[in-house]
Amino acid sequence: MLLHLSTWQDVEAYLQQSQGIILPIGSTEQHGPTGLIGTDAICAEAIARGVGDVTQAIVGPTINVGMALHHTAFPGTISLRPSTLIQVVQEYVTCLAKAGFTKFYFINGHGGNIATLKAAFSETYAHLEDLQIANAQRVQCQVANWFMCGSVYKLAKELYGNQEGSHATPSEVALTQYVYPEAIKQAPLSPEVGTGHRIYGAANFRAHYPDGRMGSNPGLATPEHGKQFYDLAVKELSNDYLEFVNAD
Amino acid sequence: MLLHLSTWQDVEAYLQQSQGIILPIGSTEQHGPTGLIGTDAICAEAIARGVGDVTQAIVGPTINVGMALHHTAFPGTISLRPSTLIQVVQEYVTCLAKAGFTKFYFINGHGGNIATLKAAFSETYAHLEDLQIANAQRVQCQVANWFMCGSVYKLAKELYGNQEGSHATPSEVALTQYVYPEAIKQAPLSPEVGTGHRIYGAANFRAHYPDGRMGSNPGLATPEHGKQFYDLAVKELSNDYLEFVNAD
Amino acid sequence: MLLHLSTWQDVEAYLQQSQGIILPIGSTEQHGPTGLIGTDAICAEAIARGVGDVTQAIVGPTINVGMALHHTAFPGTISLRPSTLIQVVQEYVTCLAKAGFTKFYFINGHGGNIATLKAAFSETYAHLEDLQIANAQRVQCQVANWFMCGSVYKLAKELYGNQEGSHATPSEVALTQYVYPEAIKQAPLSPEVGTGHRIYGAANFRAHYPDGRMGSNPGLATPEHGKQFYDLAVKELSNDYLEFVNAD
Amino acid sequence: MLLHLSTWQDVEAYLQQSQGIILPIGSTEQHGPTGLIGTDAICAEAIARGVGDVTQAIVGPTINVGMALHHTAFPGTISLRPSTLIQVVQEYVTCLAKAGFTKFYFINGHGGNIATLKAAFSETYAHLEDLQIANAQRVQCQVANWFMCGSVYKLAKELYGNQEGSHATPSEVALTQYVYPEAIKQAPLSPEVGTGHRIYGAANFRAHYPDGRMGSNPGLATPEHGKQFYDLAVKELSNDYLEFVNAD
Amino acid sequence: MLLHLSTWQDVEAYLQQSQGIILPIGSTEQHGPTGLIGTDAICAEAIARGVGDVTQAIVGPTINVGMALHHTAFPGTISLRPSTLIQVVQEYVTCLAKAGFTKFYFINGHGGNIATLKAAFSETYAHLEDLQIANAQRVQCQVANWFMCGSVYKLAKELYGNQEGSHATPSEVALTQYVYPEAIKQAPLSPEVGTGHRIYGAANFRAHYPDGRMGSNPGLATPEHGKQFYDLAVKELSNDYLEFVNAD
Amino acid sequence: MLLHLSTWQDVEAYLQQSQGIILPIGSTEQHGPTGLIGTDAICAEAIARGVGDVTQAIVGPTINVGMALHHTAFPGTISLRPSTLIQVVQEYVTCLAKAGFTKFYFINGHGGNIATLKAAFSETYAHLEDLQIANAQRVQCQVANWFMCGSVYKLAKELYGNQEGSHATPSEVALTQYVYPEAIKQAPLSPEVGTGHRIYGAANFRAHYPDGRMGSNPGLATPEHGKQFYDLAVKELSNDYLEFVNAD
Repeated sequence: MLLHLSTWQDVEAYLQQSQGIILPIGSTEQHGPTGLIGTDAICAEAIARGVGDVTQAIVGPTINVGMALHHTAFPGTISLRPSTLIQVVQEYVTCLAKAGFTKFYFINGHGGNIATLKAAFSETYAHLEDLQIANAQRVQCQVANWFMCGSVYKLAKELYGNQEGSHATPSEVALTQYVYPEAIKQAPLSPEVGTGHRIYGAANFRAHYPDGRMGSNPGLATPEHGKQFYDLAVKELSNDYLEFVNAD
Repeated sequence: MLLHLSTWQDVEAYLQQSQGIILPIGSTEQHGPTGLIGTDAICAEAIARGVGDVTQAIVGPTINVGMALHHTAFPGTISLRPSTLIQVVQEYVTCLAKAGFTKFYFINGHGGNIATLKAAFSETYAHLEDLQIANAQRVQCQVANWFMCGSVYKLAKELYGNQEGSHATPSEVALTQYVYPEAIKQAPLSPEVGTGHRIYGAANFRAHYPDGRMGSNPGLATPEHGKQFYDLAVKELSNDYLEFVNAD
Repeated sequence: MLLHLSTWQDVEAYLQQSQGIILPIGSTEQHGPTGLIGTDAICAEAIARGVGDVTQAIVGPTINVGMALHHTAFPGTISLRPSTLIQVVQEYVTCLAKAGFTKFYFINGHGGNIATLKAAFSETYAHLEDLQIANAQRVQCQVANWFMCGSVYKLAKELYGNQEGSHATPSEVALTQYVYPEAIKQAPLSPEVGTGHRIYGAANFRAHYPDGRMGSNPGLATPEHGKQFYDLAVKELSNDYLEFVNAD
Repeated sequence: MLLHLSTWQDVEAYLQQSQGIILPIGSTEQHGPTGLIGTDAICAEAIARGVGDVTQAIVGPTINVGMALHHTAFPGTISLRPSTLIQVVQEYVTCLAKAGFTKFYFINGHGGNIATLKAAFSETYAHLEDLQIANAQRVQCQVANWFMCGSVYKLAKELYGNQEGSHATPSEVALTQYVYPEAIKQAPLSPEVGTGHRIYGAANFRAHYPDGRMGSNPGLATPEHGKQFYDLAVKELSNDYLEFVNAD
Repeated sequence: MLLHLSTWQDVEAYLQQSQGIILPIGSTEQHGPTGLIGTDAICAEAIARGVGDVTQAIVGPTINVGMALHHTAFPGTISLRPSTLIQVVQEYVTCLAKAGFTKFYFINGHGGNIATLKAAFSETYAHLEDLQIANAQRVQCQVANWFMCGSVYKLAKELYGNQEGSHATPSEVALTQYVYPEAIKQAPLSPEVGTGHRIYGAANFRAHYPDGRMGSNPGLATPEHGKQFYDLAVKELSNDYLEFVNAD
Repeated sequence: MLLHLSTWQDVEAYLQQSQGIILPIGSTEQHGPTGLIGTDAICAEAIARGVGDVTQAIVGPTINVGMALHHTAFPGTISLRPSTLIQVVQEYVTCLAKAGFTKFYFINGHGGNIATLKAAFSETYAHLEDLQIANAQRVQCQVANWFMCGSVYKLAKELYGNQEGSHATPSEVALTQYVYPEAIKQAPLSPEVGTGHRIYGAANFRAHYPDGRMGSNPGLATPEHGKQFYDLAVKELSNDYLEFVNAD
């Protein structure tokens, strides 16, 4: 069930059955010469909808711009500052918590969002307690990173070994190829690829990762791999969601 | 050309041709018993992509949660506060302006966003001048409300007369029916409908507009009407975009 | 009744009779070679006091600095950022709402304030509901732009035709001449005047409107016209205020 | 010279002669049973204009709402939070500093503003250095409290002894009587008056100072006294302003 | 009793006896060629702990970075902006007030903190009333500046006359020598020392006070003097604390 | 070398040799019936100073209040909100970066700080680039969690097995016993201890962890263990710091 394709009365009925909601969050950032700028949002959204189908959970609007400041030296990247994203997440959760939702499951497609999301959850709990809304103490948020699913990680290692890298990875590119086969990109990928540098500011990032890839060879990606990743992630996160939503 | 389906090198190439970008902005809010919660985002996104096709402009990620505080007494509505939305818009524009974009054309699906967007533009211009980035003084933002296109307005009056109303209108519902025929909703619509009350806070809104409609009869909507609205809006806004992007 | 010339016990007594208050809001910004920098505040304050006299409403302190970022390339302009003005308006209304006021009627002298004021109202309603103060749900704010009164607009067209323009207009200059006859300015006005350019940032504004006027010929203004505008605006807004304050 | 009665070209000419500006700041707060809510703004504005006349300095718009949170348990009080007032002051000074002003002389009518003003000055200097505007390092702000002028203080002690008190004082009431003789208030003043309690929150303040006075007997005020206070303050602050503006 | 060396159950027990807490606040800023960067925090912390011993009060963590923007042109200085420090103080007090503390006694070692602290207190009272926590109206904050104790001031004048100056003073240096005899610094001190200039921005400060001292001769300091200052300050502030905590 | 025991001239000299600085960060939060409220700050500070001794690095002031919102249902806990802590960290780093520091090594004693610190680093890099300060692109921040050192983790498992738990752990309690043997606490520890619940808001936390421990048995701690942990952490982090500061 997709929130944006529902009416408010559908939501009212849903809340009688469940107080859980899935919120996909991605990013709008460079993903190397062949990766789509929307990669993280595309993956998160597709998997979130898959999980929603399996679990009968409602899926909210995709947060398609996240925390990607370190990618902003590449054109096309859009990022919120962490403190802005904290505020955005807090306002999403607060609106929904006032309506009766208590279990917020963020399916995340971007490693750079994790720290800010966790900070946002802490800030939001405190905010809700200050507001003294009815179910403030029952609100729980969780971030689920599809790319860190055990089954996903295992397959990526099998298929790509250390050419998986850590950004513009073949696994995430494969997943976008599965979702948008019409948007598969071809571009020359130099065999040398930046690797092993920590992430600091945007200019520093681009200096060390000149084409945007971090140790990855996205040329290995195929739409068929993408389907495999999709299926694994949906399965694993569906179980995880149900556990979360049913927990105390 | 869709930003999320492009690579950063595609964007780099695009910027050689044009510094314009279209940003769809909608809302996630109740639209009466038969209107989709995503109506405003759906309409803005669909039309923006249509305009992008016609004009060869790049279309950025849809801002699918806007300023809908007055709808938050209905479950399913998510809203940013105006000052948060100002910050979000400023960060989008700043990222893109640093990359070289100078013409920002927001195709908007929600009347409640207009004031905040205009405020955001003013705040952003000043911010960019403070940052002293290269093309700060050339940055221009514009909001284009598809539902206020002359041709759209005229057709709505012809088709619906004063049953068009001003929220959960048959015209916007029709457009979503055209885009998502699989999500056409049926629900009883009482002949009496709230009308004529100004908009203040959320509780006050719901008291005066108990089913969420404002003077409208969305039961008149059809997908065929939706296509007509879509075609008119795309045509009119394409011309407007080209005029904007080519102006001094 | 002027708030600043009242005691707190006067206010306490007033609140037994009415919960309405008029708040004048203007701007401190260039108004061309002969227009006063305080024009918008002067007009708003004078008319607000006139409306207060007619309607027996209390008139609060004039917000004499508003949202004029686009005029800041001219010396003497002072502007708040929109998000700061939102905060200021919210704090005014919150203080007064806690004391028992529920109807806030902003008489506005500056087009550039409108979007920010509307955004501020939305933000304020939500803030008051979060604070859970007694009458949060009854708080209503309205912006009344004297220069958009039907009667004012009509007279301006009659007197000036398209030389009314849209900034540093003869109508507003006339009104300040009526209020401050001792401060009538003379300066050469070139027959060519910038017109037809949209408003973006401050540097862009000054480039297109080099002497600060927007399509206007303030040389047509007279104090006698000013009195006419004043009388029309006071009459029309007095009726509007009473309707607002007496509405549900 | 009053900023609001000047044109931008007047300001441009003024800046050739001087980079100093006087900014009156008051408050909108209860002043006991006979003191006007606008007392602090009225006094600051009147004296500022007097100083402007003597020194040929330009006088900006009066900040008529200041930091009066501790008075907000009395109806009619309006206050900004300190952090909002800091932002407001910063934006005033930044606009004017960009135009070329470097010496900001705040004539203040309210003790409760002092701490926040000083904090605002510190924040503003740092902000201007961050902006790297031309004369950032030359910007200087000063707060001049008319009621703390040596000559004013001496006269108040002579006239009223310890009935001067510290809020709703006869000296400030006298000054408003001089400025607005038509608004002299009469009300019973109990001989007992709260005194000696420190200032904390608003409810605590009202509990200890139930009629709003702090140890004062404003019944002793006369318009003639007011003129004496006015003359002394204008003379002393004029000298102080000239010293400030001419200092390195 | 030191908060950081207590358990939460110790605090729970303490709150049965007292609702007072001492919070030391200093600064991390240059103190001339021989003064320690931590001078203000060292003094505040040592005296606070002495007062805690005498009065059996609990002493919270030292706020060792304060408002020192005007010292930031010297390396090693760290400062918060005033509005950030306001937020920090508000969050400290709010956490502790929710736990039951109502009397907050800030022992302060830095003149530059005073204005911001006072602003923070005002903002905090209003915030607590908005939160509607149980004892919001009983919360009281006070700033006690050890260097402004009558007894301290008198001794400083006796020992150093006008060589006490106002920053990097021999009295504060002496106190740090008493606390950290192992960190006594030697450096040439020019007989000429900046004096008499008001404090504005950081660059201006350094221009007028090139070695960081303000009219002082810290070469006169001895650890023995430091002990005397310590003893006087602890005695005087202990009495003041008890008076504060026992007052209504 | 300790910043607070240095002069600004010492810092100036240090910057000729190194641009690295160590910043200890802890928390002020409950640590169960026998753990000190200052545990995390005590551990971080002690280890940071040890690392400073080994590596000749300068050690800044300890941030002794961090992000501990989930512990605020226990008296004595003080926490900043994440967005406030982000601002604080940004201002520390900005001050020091302007002075010439480029390598910021945060030695952290509290798991709850990690997400917010990482978010703060991202926000700070972007802020520094916006400020266009000289070495903005060379600024690098790193968080080093002493309790996650491989050697520390290994010893904890050897000594305590799964009684190490995850909050109020015997390892951190041991370290505080080594640093403050005079503050070793005794209190009954029930054999049952909360475990396995995720962390959400403060009330939820206390409901699941009623005495504040998370799966730990701090009764196993000894000062001798503490010394072992201290030695291991100092050694491992010294190596890590040198690698960080010498890296490109």
